[in-house]
Amino acid sequence: MVSPNIAIVGITGAVGQEMLNCLESRDFPINELRPLASTRSAGKKINFRNEEIVIQELTNKSFEGIDIALFSAGGNISKEFGESAASAGAVVIDNSSAFRMDEGVPLVVPEINPNDALNHNGIIANPNCTTIITLMGLNPLHQKWNALNIIASSYQAVSGSGAQGIKELKSQISAIHEGKEIETNVYPCQIAHNVIPQVDQFLENGYTKEEMKMENEGRKILDNPSLKASVTCVRVPVYRSHSIAATVQFESTPNVEEAKILIKEAEGVNVMDDPESGIFPTTLDTTEKDECLVGRLREDIVLENSLSFWVVGDQVRKGAALNAVQIAELLK
Amino acid sequence: MVSPNIAIVGITGAVGQEMLNCLESRDFPINELRPLASTRSAGKKINFRNEEIVIQELTNKSFEGIDIALFSAGGNISKEFGESAASAGAVVIDNSSAFRMDEGVPLVVPEINPNDALNHNGIIANPNCTTIITLMGLNPLHQKWNALNIIASSYQAVSGSGAQGIKELKSQISAIHEGKEIETNVYPCQIAHNVIPQVDQFLENGYTKEEMKMENEGRKILDNPSLKASVTCVRVPVYRSHSIAATVQFESTPNVEEAKILIKEAEGVNVMDDPESGIFPTTLDTTEKDECLVGRLREDIVLENSLSFWVVGDQVRKGAALNAVQIAELLK
Repeated sequence: MVSPNIAIVGITGAVGQEMLNCLESRDFPINELRPLASTRSAGKKINFRNEEIVIQELTNKSFEGIDIALFSAGGNISKEFGESAASAGAVVIDNSSAFRMDEGVPLVVPEINPNDALNHNGIIANPNCTTIITLMGLNPLHQKWNALNIIASSYQAVSGSGAQGIKELKSQISAIHEGKEIETNVYPCQIAHNVIPQVDQFLENGYTKEEMKMENEGRKILDNPSLKASVTCVRVPVYRSHSIAATVQFESTPNVEEAKILIKEAEGVNVMDDPESGIFPTTLDTTEKDECLVGRLREDIVLENSLSFWVVGDQVRKGAALNAVQIAELLK
Repeated sequence: MVSPNIAIVGITGAVGQEMLNCLESRDFPINELRPLASTRSAGKKINFRNEEIVIQELTNKSFEGIDIALFSAGGNISKEFGESAASAGAVVIDNSSAFRMDEGVPLVVPEINPNDALNHNGIIANPNCTTIITLMGLNPLHQKWNALNIIASSYQAVSGSGAQGIKELKSQISAIHEGKEIETNVYPCQIAHNVIPQVDQFLENGYTKEEMKMENEGRKILDNPSLKASVTCVRVPVYRSHSIAATVQFESTPNVEEAKILIKEAEGVNVMDDPESGIFPTTLDTTEKDECLVGRLREDIVLENSLSFWVVGDQVRKGAALNAVQIAELLK
């Protein structure tokens, strides 16, 4: 597939915009770029490689001649238009949760399970952002010691709710700064100067859908069907990067120094870990960066055969757009 | 001890100010209130019960005639002046970590181990804020099922670094809003729109002192010498309340519905937990409130005999000032 025709569905969203950036910065060869959005945005122009391209309205006929369709407009749009894109001959790379757990749909983090991408039936799913970032830190360790259990808490950026989430935090901070009333549209309550222990809908077991993705998607990506994960997903007032504090129990005994080497040798993730010199990754260290960063690596003092660590990654980039573009690169 | 003479050391700090508020709002009977601070603040006035009181300079002679001395000016000040206050006949209630683990110094959360306060030798220690708030949620469950292991992550307010921490977050947010350079004094890097996985100094085992307090202080407060705790303490850009996501493994099998009842029946803590209706506590729900709040109670899906929950409390109040004043009330 040399210089494919590429469609982006949801071009006006935070992830859609970042997909454009990634395609551009990675010199992805493209014959035609077809930006697609709702009627509201159709007719507007985007800039790509110094060319203006008109956004077209998304319809079932939008995918004629398209080789790869990057979807990031929410699960409903993926369900409505994903099949027709695939029927038209495009390979759909879908950022929503619509198809992730479907049999026959590969769920791919290119640094972890690139070969899965080649066994698609027209649709490849991009995993959940928190899951991708956690697994980027965990997989090098899992390959060596076999991960059994994950207990994790997340510190998730508002970008995870798209451009609207970013806007909501910005406008609330401005309102508070100017002594005005805040407005709440995206989140169930104020996110500025607050921490909200809910991401996605609640399930019967008391966990949210987002929290269960770590176990469900983690099993599929790592090909590790007995993996267990207990996660608390929390929205914090930061803009772009997700951070995760994880305790992972392995089948065999892990070792901190070896863990650092394994992560350093892995693609797409690095170690930033020298507590004595005050070195550990914070949210801002990965903002608009491709690499995920791991720090605070230590032997866990509660569970046997366990390590605790902190992993950070740009949610819009590696957690979404970059990962999707990397999947597209695997199809070349 | 009817209407004691009370000294407050560190009256100008965030916790010192809140101690004043607590004494006032709880109608604590006081004969003389003696506010103490460094030379820099001596001579300034504070307002207490509609009276102006002049701040005196803290010296070794400051405690003559004092019955209860509330210390909140950092560990060094406690070490330098705590003994002389006790020698002068005052009972020291110390908010720093200086004496917490000393034998013969009770470490007290009044709702949990009030009787320990009576076995003092002149000094009673106020526990770490994150530990207090976590144990307020955990103790009712521990009493029933016996806690063995805690795995927790914290979301800690800048108030934990005192008035300077609050000032730093405020000024950084203002600077960013106005397009100016930010200044960093209290934290190792920007805290506005960021998340920093370090609270207190690092130890050789890769944990911080703050993180180890949960295990060390938890064992003493709960009289549970085999308790183990693995904690990741994280500073988040919120002002007043700490939140903790905890997974706790018990000796016997816990039950979510009974856990809710046990917490509801306990003093100083309440349940705010109805996920289907979008009800769970956020940081702001406890700001300037006495009660700690527990939500997200669920059977943990990884560890046997475990519950996961989310607990929030005002760090300045129950995590520090209120707890100290409650200890003083036990001495009446």
